[in-house]
Amino acid sequence: MAASAESGGGEGVLSRVVRILQQFGPDTPVLRVSEVARRTELHLATASRLVEEMVRLGLLARDADRRVRIGLRLWELASRTPPTLGLREAAMPYLEDLHAVSGHHAQLAVLDDGEALFVERLSAPGAVVNITTIAGRLPLHASSSGLVLLAHAPAELQERILAGPLKRYTGHTPGSPAALRSMLAEIRRAGFVSCPGFIDAHATGIAAPIRDAGGRVVASLGVVIPNDDEARSQIPAVRAAARGVTRALSDGGHGKASR
Amino acid sequence: MAASAESGGGEGVLSRVVRILQQFGPDTPVLRVSEVARRTELHLATASRLVEEMVRLGLLARDADRRVRIGLRLWELASRTPPTLGLREAAMPYLEDLHAVSGHHAQLAVLDDGEALFVERLSAPGAVVNITTIAGRLPLHASSSGLVLLAHAPAELQERILAGPLKRYTGHTPGSPAALRSMLAEIRRAGFVSCPGFIDAHATGIAAPIRDAGGRVVASLGVVIPNDDEARSQIPAVRAAARGVTRALSDGGHGKASR
Repeated sequence: MAASAESGGGEGVLSRVVRILQQFGPDTPVLRVSEVARRTELHLATASRLVEEMVRLGLLARDADRRVRIGLRLWELASRTPPTLGLREAAMPYLEDLHAVSGHHAQLAVLDDGEALFVERLSAPGAVVNITTIAGRLPLHASSSGLVLLAHAPAELQERILAGPLKRYTGHTPGSPAALRSMLAEIRRAGFVSCPGFIDAHATGIAAPIRDAGGRVVASLGVVIPNDDEARSQIPAVRAAARGVTRALSDGGHGKASR
Repeated sequence: MAASAESGGGEGVLSRVVRILQQFGPDTPVLRVSEVARRTELHLATASRLVEEMVRLGLLARDADRRVRIGLRLWELASRTPPTLGLREAAMPYLEDLHAVSGHHAQLAVLDDGEALFVERLSAPGAVVNITTIAGRLPLHASSSGLVLLAHAPAELQERILAGPLKRYTGHTPGSPAALRSMLAEIRRAGFVSCPGFIDAHATGIAAPIRDAGGRVVASLGVVIPNDDEARSQIPAVRAAARGVTRALSDGGHGKASR
């Protein structure tokens, strides 16, 4: 009975805590408690007490001016055994090589909640524009990483994405269900995708699938490079790197930890 | 009043949630709910309900066999604006170069709660033994990264660590307050530390301080390489890389996000 009462109270509190954590993002790394309250639609007193408790436990950290940010302890708890640890460890050497060869961005994405979630990225200073960040997300239909994941996703998810809306970032982003459907078939046939100017006119994304020991696509590996005549020359390197990670996942028994 | 009652209940719940998250580590990435209950000393019913709620919110994820692990959503919330984002972005290019040149491990650590907390690590397959992991911790007195942080830490922390106990991993680990005190002075004078065999007889750690725009030491950058005659030849590369990150932090205005 006591347990039930405790968890009953906890349900609401935990949801609110997650809602508070969701307010921190690339554009809002630091927030005042009043901003937290406004954004979460919590009473200021409730937000203040929850934030206070989160600071005490290290889930949030307070700046000198009393604004709050994600706490080092929360990062540590989430990163000590990250859901993508096995995948990241298998992929990192290949990601580094690809980054060294491409000279721009190399990145690793997994499918989560109908989007491409980027779990690692290596970038060179001065590299071509790339809107992804670590733990950032992009739509499946518009990004090279996302298209590879979508091409191998369950049919229900494919149909949901095909049903739209298909946001067009540029004139090259696939904007019709027919165009997207044929692109997905081509990705499955060719084993990679090259997306010149799909998200930014100046950038080309190239990505290929990573499979677990059972042959299931669990991630995509790719580069973002300048959109020029040389771009397609990177395709073999991306495909080879994705195959290398696939082999490492099968050899190393990392498959179970890949998601 | 309502807010007060809610937060009163929340206090206990959040502490328990953190206690549950703390049970997941490199040796225990996946746990049964009964193991969670036993390790946290929570009633099984309480643990079950909290775990259920954490799974629903994506803080934990459930395997096919109903065991749980850290959830992708928790990782995302913690990693989108990590406390060390500015530091990591400034350090990553230098860390990659150092890793390429040393051929073994290159790593980045910050001081947290009297220990060295490793916020990034690049490792080559087949590299020399290195017990650190990302989001892992090592004692300040025994690791090269920790010694650099300790040498520049507040006097109270230095005195607390000097008061011991000073765990000796090998015969080379500083084991007396006098030896440690003179080592810290030497690190401040020389601007780096080289630790042959301090933690493992076969490995040498070399580390140097990273400073923010105000000159405060906010992190240490280092390598772990084989403990042989060549080890000291890596010192200039480590020192140069740490200076490069320091400069990047000052130039880029990343200083405020360095912790």
